Amino acid sequence: MLISKIGEFGLIDRFKKLIKTDASVIKGSGDDCAVIKFDREHYLLWTCDMIVEDVDFTFRTDPYLIGRKAVAVSLSDIAACAGEPRYLLAALAMPKQTSLGFAEKIVQGMRETANKYRVNIVGGDLSRAGKIALDVSMLGIVKKKHLVLRSGAKPGDVIFVTGTLGGSIKGKHLKFTPRLKESRFLAENFKPSAMIDLSDGLAQDLGQILKESRVGARIYAELIPVSPQATGLSDALYSGEDFELLFTLPKKQAQKLLKKKLVIFQSIGEIIERRSGLRLVEKNKRETILEPKGFRHF
Amino acid sequence: MLISKIGEFGLIDRFKKLIKTDASVIKGSGDDCAVIKFDREHYLLWTCDMIVEDVDFTFRTDPYLIGRKAVAVSLSDIAACAGEPRYLLAALAMPKQTSLGFAEKIVQGMRETANKYRVNIVGGDLSRAGKIALDVSMLGIVKKKHLVLRSGAKPGDVIFVTGTLGGSIKGKHLKFTPRLKESRFLAENFKPSAMIDLSDGLAQDLGQILKESRVGARIYAELIPVSPQATGLSDALYSGEDFELLFTLPKKQAQKLLKKKLVIFQSIGEIIERRSGLRLVEKNKRETILEPKGFRHF
Repeated sequence: MLISKIGEFGLIDRFKKLIKTDASVIKGSGDDCAVIKFDREHYLLWTCDMIVEDVDFTFRTDPYLIGRKAVAVSLSDIAACAGEPRYLLAALAMPKQTSLGFAEKIVQGMRETANKYRVNIVGGDLSRAGKIALDVSMLGIVKKKHLVLRSGAKPGDVIFVTGTLGGSIKGKHLKFTPRLKESRFLAENFKPSAMIDLSDGLAQDLGQILKESRVGARIYAELIPVSPQATGLSDALYSGEDFELLFTLPKKQAQKLLKKKLVIFQSIGEIIERRSGLRLVEKNKRETILEPKGFRHF
Repeated sequence: MLISKIGEFGLIDRFKKLIKTDASVIKGSGDDCAVIKFDREHYLLWTCDMIVEDVDFTFRTDPYLIGRKAVAVSLSDIAACAGEPRYLLAALAMPKQTSLGFAEKIVQGMRETANKYRVNIVGGDLSRAGKIALDVSMLGIVKKKHLVLRSGAKPGDVIFVTGTLGGSIKGKHLKFTPRLKESRFLAENFKPSAMIDLSDGLAQDLGQILKESRVGARIYAELIPVSPQATGLSDALYSGEDFELLFTLPKKQAQKLLKKKLVIFQSIGEIIERRSGLRLVEKNKRETILEPKGFRHF
């Protein structure tokens, strides 16, 4: 059997079963970051993401943006756990015939993005490969009381997203702003019950929150902030790499957030009982069941 | 200009210049692990290594050994800093048409190797790629008083290696034992002044210690433990992926270690003044200057 038959999430489920962790691991796989005991007030957050030529970019992509994206993807994972990014290691594999200018631009993109968010680049690994691959591993810290996982959403909670969704392929996937500022604002002023970053599309990533929280959701087509770059609502629902935050807030906190009238935060629906699944209320008020599908590597 | 012209170490030197770190970083790039402040008694050690199809293995390699190697390479880096490995994240990129059995064997090799050394697998990242690439990022801890870097060797110190060198390509590169036990024994009973793991060949890796410590070295051909798998002395000097430890001990401690007559530790020479460079005393007593060359990716 090929891995494409069982799919990315089937693979992840199989691999997760193989893995045991000790009591110092607060959260192993299955969230945006691994969460490890650190000190009395903080946890360590840890994530890694590999981006690969011909999948995440091509040799025609501006190499500065390749480096930028590799770092920003991990920053987005730290934001999704309400943490502060601190350190990164980078493993870069390149063909022998890569030009020095191209390699240096990748590093420059990484460095400037890391500097902007006050992340220390503490080392890396260079190797040869037929195609470029860049893996960034990032460490952050989070106050214990601020940690947000995917697993805390409750029926009645309001669902929010930041920014606009869809059409990322037209450029945003290389140039998005990781939502660290918004994540910090939420952590300091609210208590999100669940959060994830939108890397595989709204329907699929909301599906992750529903699965981990054992709940359902109802979202409203007319509330979803569709990007001007998107081809339409289904692009906003199913396309990957928006790198916006998707989070849930208890109703009272949601009202408090809505009163602030911050355009970056848009309420799109509510958490409901698990048995109701994931539902979309269309503009004509008709309610349909939404498949939690989206971007899949396999 | 192509990266192959400037070479792996030229690239690393260029990239290092671009990077600044804050006071929480004890050691950034340029050692086996990054070293970061942790608690009163310990530092955090952090390393990552990517292994890539057609460079580090082929599609004909036993997939269990691919997973094993990816983990063991990082274990060897933690050993080289005299630390204890604790956590790992793995990023695995594979072609769509990879068989499920092959993928699961890679994960099994990783898991069993991690379990054997009591390392928690805390998550990872799956992605699609034309060739298999596997990046392992590992965290460990080290008692502050045990930390060994590449930079502490002094003239008069005795140079040691563990095990035997050369011929790794015949199988050891996939099946080597990371020298954690030996590293712990050294840390608890001695105070190595410098240490590195032999990934790029004795001459080149000793060259790293000499560069970071600003010293020279004299090694003796008849003392070098050439592996039965090696084609000869030059194979033992210049071939990569032995994954043995190379370390230096002040003379008195060296005498104490030698008295124990432990076959795993072999003294091969001594540290001398920097201006003398790296010298090899051949079996006929003739002394020659040794090029610090070895495996290079570019």
